[in-house]
Parts: sequence; structure tokens; C-alpha cells
Amino acid sequence: MEFTLASELARDSYHLADWPLCEVRVMNDRQFPWFLLVPKVADVREIIDLTEDDQLQLLRESRFLCHWLKAEYQPDKLNVAALGNQVPQLHVHHLARFQTDVAWPAPVWGKQPMHPLEEGEVARLQSLFADITF
Amino acid sequence: MEFTLASELARDSYHLADWPLCEVRVMNDRQFPWFLLVPKVADVREIIDLTEDDQLQLLRESRFLCHWLKAEYQPDKLNVAALGNQVPQLHVHHLARFQTDVAWPAPVWGKQPMHPLEEGEVARLQSLFADITF
Repeated sequence: MEFTLASELARDSYHLADWPLCEVRVMNDRQFPWFLLVPKVADVREIIDLTEDDQLQLLRESRFLCHWLKAEYQPDKLNVAALGNQVPQLHVHHLARFQTDVAWPAPVWGKQPMHPLEEGEVARLQSLFADITF
Repeated sequence: MEFTLASELARDSYHLADWPLCEVRVMNDRQFPWFLLVPKVADVREIIDLTEDDQLQLLRESRFLCHWLKAEYQPDKLNVAALGNQVPQLHVHHLARFQTDVAWPAPVWGKQPMHPLEEGEVARLQSLFADITF
């Protein structure tokens, strides 16, 4: 079976880059710097469903994204989470959180409606990520 | 500086085992099988604050705990998350979630008050974890 992105993820986020294991995507919500890593592996719901090699690669890509989030946004806290109760396809949330954001200190999920990204933001991020050689 | 468990984690959870990197703890909430891995490293807030070796060890311990959760509870979904907006000391939540649990499909944090574990449950878990040689 081939990897196909879940329709909810395709609807709510934009493609930024293809890394060795994961699609990097940004959620369409201007309230938070909110990124996803989606392993391009068919039929995977849990991190432990990946091979050990792919788990290691996910850790590497997550680490890289976390360092980038810290450098780009200087957040007060990172949130990294694999939940998937609503969309079971494995996707790992990476958020830069601020004491001043609308959800702080609660988690971001299901609290407030999404506010679409500002015009040009997806193109700006795609251009930034195009310069990252992993 | 020596590792000291954050007071909120000491208040809300019980010690189950010491693994090579982490304390394994169970949250005092009977509504969910809800465990924590707390790396025994001083002054660490983010996964990327750990050394790369410790990140690998955290992945190993997380993987082990996830497999154990699946075997013990047969959940519909695992939730694995490093948030720390309220308690910045690095701790990684590991939850077994069910379509029938009180928070489903929302995340568990900050939705409903905790209901203490049943009497004997901590001792039962401590005894189970005592038999696990990591």
C-alpha cells in the first residue's frame, strides 16, 4: 500500500518540504507556529508501528525541527505530541508556544477555532524550508 | 545541580520504577491509564536539551512503555506528548486512550478533574514494573 496523506491533514495544513522520512507541513492557523511531521509510510498509526530505523529518523527530523522552531520563533516552550485520536494517521505536532498565545497554558487542540495563515506566509515558509538541506 | 522532581509531578503522580534514564510514574487519575517518563537529568525542559545519547535512550524507554501500554490495556490509540506549559520540567506523557473514555476524542489535559486511582492500583503497578528488567 502506498502512503497517502489523510484528507483532514491535507485540508488543514500545507506542504512545506519532503525530508527523508517525513513530509513537513504547517497548520493553517496563524495563532501558533504549528508544524507537523508526517512519516511517508503507509498504514502507520503509532510511533512504535515504524521500524526502529524509521523511529530513529523521526527523532532526527523532530530534533531538527525543534531546533529550527527555537531559532526562528524564540518560544517560551515547545510542545511535541503524537495524539491522533481524530486523525489516526501518524503525525507529530510541533508547536512553538508563548505565554501570550491564546491557548496558554492549555494545549492548543480543540480549544479555539483556527484562524487561517496570513497571505504569503506559506510561500515564505516554503522558501525558508527549500534552503534547508537535511 | 542534582535532579529533583518538580513538586507538581510529585503531588499528581506516583513513582513506579527507575529505568536507566527516566523515572516511570503513573498519574493519580483512574480515568485513563496515564504514565509519565521523567528523565533524571537536572534542569531540562525540552527533549532537545538532552544529549543525543539521552534522546536515544528516551526513545528506547518510550518505545518500551508504549509496547507495554498496548499489551496491558489494548487501547484504541496511544497519546505521547511532551508539553510542559504548566510544569516546565521535561516529562513525557504516555496515555492509553479509548473511544469510551471521558475525554475522547479530545486530549486529556485540563478538561476534567482528576479522579484518584483505586486503592491498591499503585501497589499493583509497582509490582508489575518491579518485574520488568529494562
